[in-house]
Amino acid sequence: MTTHLVAAIDIGGTKIAGALVDAGGELLHRVQRPTPAGESGEQVLRAATDVVSGLTAHPLWSRVGAVGIGSAGPVDARSGTVSPVNIPGWRDFPLVAGIRETTGALPVTLVGDGAAIAAGEHWRGAAQGRDNALCMVVSTGVGGGLILDGRLRPGPTGNAGHIGHISVDLDGDLCPCGGRGCVERIASGTNIARYALDAGWRPATADGDTSAAGVAAAARDGHPVALAAFTRSARALAAGIAATASLVELETVVVGGGVSQSGDVLFTPLRAALREFATLPFVRNLEVVPARLGTDAGLVGAAAACWSESDTFLARGAAGT
Amino acid sequence: MTTHLVAAIDIGGTKIAGALVDAGGELLHRVQRPTPAGESGEQVLRAATDVVSGLTAHPLWSRVGAVGIGSAGPVDARSGTVSPVNIPGWRDFPLVAGIRETTGALPVTLVGDGAAIAAGEHWRGAAQGRDNALCMVVSTGVGGGLILDGRLRPGPTGNAGHIGHISVDLDGDLCPCGGRGCVERIASGTNIARYALDAGWRPATADGDTSAAGVAAAARDGHPVALAAFTRSARALAAGIAATASLVELETVVVGGGVSQSGDVLFTPLRAALREFATLPFVRNLEVVPARLGTDAGLVGAAAACWSESDTFLARGAAGT
Repeated sequence: MTTHLVAAIDIGGTKIAGALVDAGGELLHRVQRPTPAGESGEQVLRAATDVVSGLTAHPLWSRVGAVGIGSAGPVDARSGTVSPVNIPGWRDFPLVAGIRETTGALPVTLVGDGAAIAAGEHWRGAAQGRDNALCMVVSTGVGGGLILDGRLRPGPTGNAGHIGHISVDLDGDLCPCGGRGCVERIASGTNIARYALDAGWRPATADGDTSAAGVAAAARDGHPVALAAFTRSARALAAGIAATASLVELETVVVGGGVSQSGDVLFTPLRAALREFATLPFVRNLEVVPARLGTDAGLVGAAAACWSESDTFLARGAAGT
Repeated sequence: MTTHLVAAIDIGGTKIAGALVDAGGELLHRVQRPTPAGESGEQVLRAATDVVSGLTAHPLWSRVGAVGIGSAGPVDARSGTVSPVNIPGWRDFPLVAGIRETTGALPVTLVGDGAAIAAGEHWRGAAQGRDNALCMVVSTGVGGGLILDGRLRPGPTGNAGHIGHISVDLDGDLCPCGGRGCVERIASGTNIARYALDAGWRPATADGDTSAAGVAAAARDGHPVALAAFTRSARALAAGIAATASLVELETVVVGGGVSQSGDVLFTPLRAALREFATLPFVRNLEVVPARLGTDAGLVGAAAACWSESDTFLARGAAGT
């Protein structure tokens, strides 16, 4: 009996990765190229096609039953197009059609990278067994995806769970998205570092780390400005998380990404701030946990979104294992 | 052939209403009592039981197949209990068990009043035919409910769509809910009036209307403070609506309740503020429309939540028409 596999593709501003993923979430074969983010749309597609060709050339390809793509957003799952903020050559770019030229008649599922992460953490990570969860990434930016009623809810266009660009400060600073006081504008790693530097914090040595990781190290040493920078970030995250919980009802929030690597420096003020913002009885017991999937979260997630899209396919895949 | 009916019960801080509702959303028999909100929990239940008895005594009762309850929240649909903010005698009160003493073995669906309104507007109102909608009420408070993927999503406890208590101003004023900068704390009718009065607005005559309706009349006459009060409310609503759209993807927002009766005085600044906050491509084309159900929205909605709960029952009901 043949085990069905999924071809997973993870498209980011830095790298494009692909993998053959089995029904247990194992990556059986993995391919990666740098994203030529500054080049033309056709050249970026060529990099993606190279990755896919590295999968189709593999002997296991004959067992692939579907293709899952998680892409930097915004995406439009209905039209199969993507417009990633950090890939300027792709605007309403027909990514699904482009990938299909290599993958042929296989069904293709496209979701935003936030939705992919959520699908992955629900399938094989920290949201396993949770029916209602927000899975988010706090790094250079802030993104997320939603598990509702036991399954991924990517939304009609694949962008649901976009917590980075909800406003928690309606009179706050303008955000590059055009909005004001967005969670990302306050809470991202970039903005943690900016806040600390603006408030006079400097690393101990002239060539020290001025990124959020450097601020986290200083916070761990008790530096008050560094602590304040993380508290500020944590409050914005908490307001956004509490809003999401009030709107859709959540049991669990999974937080991953570079900033979450600072551990208690982020999670302690985050849990404290949630007590401030998540006050209604039905949101009060929200659990906040670190993500469990590592650097391949996007690939596992793209595969999971694909399994999740088709219960039949999932059943077939599971049966074939 | 027998048409199936639903017994709908709408529990608010002012009145408790009940009706027999057919599969077309018509109220065939209607009963109402004032809510003895200051009395003991048992006395409030007695008022509810009186209403239900007014339904069971009707000849059509034999055709009732299910009971739908929409209650002021928070509610807990899992345990069948309610803790309405404005009915202090009911805290974790076993409402479903109490109603069952009169209705017997019929299935009972409990949802929060926001979810009920959403179910009603989706069934018979302004969200008809919309797959993804937020239906909200802006009056003394601010509440709401969600239609996702073509059906009511009340959430596990029946409270989803709670837009009134999401923070859009993380450093803002404390809200009675314990949070800070909540949409309701800024946008409700009560807070529109408070803002205008604090800023020096007074009605034209000493005995004039100092409620939000009075402020709306002044805004219609171009009074700058009254206009500012509505702009402030509209911006908080827009930030909350844009957040909801970013998190779950919406096509439509339906706005009802007393403050929405002020028409363009609210809807014009609301649509303008949405252009400020709803900037991502997948939320930019959000439609904002007035609610279509009137004072019986809660009853129609409680019936709709009940139909929505059971597709089979809905099919039976529709087939029997």
